[in-house]
Amino acid sequence: MQKGSKMEQLRIKKAQNLLEKEGVDALIIDHPTDLFYLTGVDLSTGRLVVEEGQATLFVDGRYFELCQKRTSVSVELAEGQEKKRLAGKKIGFDGHATSYQNYGKLKELFWEENLVVLDRPISFLRQIKEPEEIAIMRKAGKLATKGFDYLLTLLKEGVTEKTLAKELEIFWLQEGGEKLSFDSIIAFGENSSQPHYHSGGRKLKKAEPALFDIGVVVQRYCSDMTRVVFLDGVDAEIEKIYKIVYKARETALKQCKPGMVVGDLDDAAREVIKSAGYGEYFPHSLGHGVGLDVHELPVLKAEGPYSQTVLEPGMVITIEPGIYLPGKGGVRLEEMVVITDDGFENLLGSSAALSPRIL
Amino acid sequence: MQKGSKMEQLRIKKAQNLLEKEGVDALIIDHPTDLFYLTGVDLSTGRLVVEEGQATLFVDGRYFELCQKRTSVSVELAEGQEKKRLAGKKIGFDGHATSYQNYGKLKELFWEENLVVLDRPISFLRQIKEPEEIAIMRKAGKLATKGFDYLLTLLKEGVTEKTLAKELEIFWLQEGGEKLSFDSIIAFGENSSQPHYHSGGRKLKKAEPALFDIGVVVQRYCSDMTRVVFLDGVDAEIEKIYKIVYKARETALKQCKPGMVVGDLDDAAREVIKSAGYGEYFPHSLGHGVGLDVHELPVLKAEGPYSQTVLEPGMVITIEPGIYLPGKGGVRLEEMVVITDDGFENLLGSSAALSPRIL
Repeated sequence: MQKGSKMEQLRIKKAQNLLEKEGVDALIIDHPTDLFYLTGVDLSTGRLVVEEGQATLFVDGRYFELCQKRTSVSVELAEGQEKKRLAGKKIGFDGHATSYQNYGKLKELFWEENLVVLDRPISFLRQIKEPEEIAIMRKAGKLATKGFDYLLTLLKEGVTEKTLAKELEIFWLQEGGEKLSFDSIIAFGENSSQPHYHSGGRKLKKAEPALFDIGVVVQRYCSDMTRVVFLDGVDAEIEKIYKIVYKARETALKQCKPGMVVGDLDDAAREVIKSAGYGEYFPHSLGHGVGLDVHELPVLKAEGPYSQTVLEPGMVITIEPGIYLPGKGGVRLEEMVVITDDGFENLLGSSAALSPRIL
Repeated sequence: MQKGSKMEQLRIKKAQNLLEKEGVDALIIDHPTDLFYLTGVDLSTGRLVVEEGQATLFVDGRYFELCQKRTSVSVELAEGQEKKRLAGKKIGFDGHATSYQNYGKLKELFWEENLVVLDRPISFLRQIKEPEEIAIMRKAGKLATKGFDYLLTLLKEGVTEKTLAKELEIFWLQEGGEKLSFDSIIAFGENSSQPHYHSGGRKLKKAEPALFDIGVVVQRYCSDMTRVVFLDGVDAEIEKIYKIVYKARETALKQCKPGMVVGDLDDAAREVIKSAGYGEYFPHSLGHGVGLDVHELPVLKAEGPYSQTVLEPGMVITIEPGIYLPGKGGVRLEEMVVITDDGFENLLGSSAALSPRIL
């Protein structure tokens, strides 16, 4: 972000709008990703204080010069002035981003009775992407697909998961990717039944699932996609679960539009898998938000504190149902979509195949 | 780590030894890096409960099969059994690794009066590296140096910071590195005066500092090094501060041995810079521990809660004094060393040059 960019100022304004909503006089923000979102600067430590009509970034000497150059908010050396500034004010902090230990420091610095715990205030703002963010995430999604297409050219009997993971990473760097969104999950055969497997030394055999859960960062924004393909054939039960997962994916995507409750979306996809008899083999939520972090709000889950989140235009989410048969193999199909005024756009610029793709 | 490896069992034993020391009946561990350290499994969420004579890992369905295969501790599905198991017991948790929000969950799951906040108990264990860890970190350090040597072959007038950062990352991946320890800090000219700059589009000019703060991960362990070199000449004041920083580095390294208090080490190096008149231009601590994370305990700082930590054999730390002249440029020289029985070994397999290296 440029110093004092409009986007930065707009975001600070959005944070200031939270003050009244949350009933506080000031917001304290110290999570690195939130700090980047609001100031455009990468800080491992720092504290942004947002108040009506002003925003001040308190940093240590390491960051002072950098911040003065890069951000339009006021920058001050963190030497305890916050205490004076905020005397007697109601101060909101993020209970999710603040450790128990740092809460202790806040209590020392301010006054316990003035501290108000908030539930991820900036994460909620970050749910709704601006057009500029969506444009970047479209690039990240397309580069993810380009990487997947490249992987397909390397698929052959005997190639290892790790080899492909490394080749993919180098390809993406050469093609303008900044880094991986997360360590690539490349899982062959029975390994694909572990939703959070990491790529290892397993060699690819014919007719077994080859699962790719991959993503790349472009201009700070993550992408995330999952595909499953096969070499020279497919097992009958794996083909069956592939088609069920695809149907669950279709069912969810059709309901991806403003007004939909995320818990209901999870339920709808889950019902497809349940009614096919595989309910117990879908142990994770339907999806999650993506943005500066690969896992953000919303959480597409029928249970839990965020189940009643309503989809809005600008939200970027994954839709990733899966079925995992222990010891045998699994299928997960994942799209990364942005909610539009009347539906969704798949930011990957590609779609999972309708039935098992055999190479 | 192999399932049930000796190293894993030894670490669980060390964690069990903390129970008596901390005066608790059970330790709850849920920080991902700590979980990996103790179980050998990568988990984004999970909870290890360490008690006298037993250790149980509670995970959700996504991780159950994986954990059963990979770890020797008991694995159970997290469905609230911890509550029954730990009824009436004193339970220690890490106040640094636990968010304020998760503390709320612990209070719900257990009993507030039984919860004991501890200060980074597993981080303290992780300070002392086992011989197997040191052997891996030696590889990581040597690969870091190899990457730096490669960078020198690419240095020329007009090359950008970002180009070098990308070339380095690809080189390391090709040479067996797993990933970057952190986003490379490659800073030319005045950018080198910002200790936490990120590589940008700045082009290299003659006779200005080119600072490289870089590190690569090998077998999960990080390396970290900083060097400053020059193309075709060096400014007189930059040469002066280079020599002061080198002297501060020498002063600190000479005192790197068991029994040394880290706060005194920081003081000793800082005194060299202060007495040369540049004290205010060294705004960060002397160094930090390195291991599974690039920033771990100890913290080499004269002030703060960890200043009285005493160096022990097996600790891996950085020594990285620096002087930063705003708008002009900076010099930081960083070694990554392991404390031995009578001194230290530089794990980088290389040393910063005694005086400015002009290419």
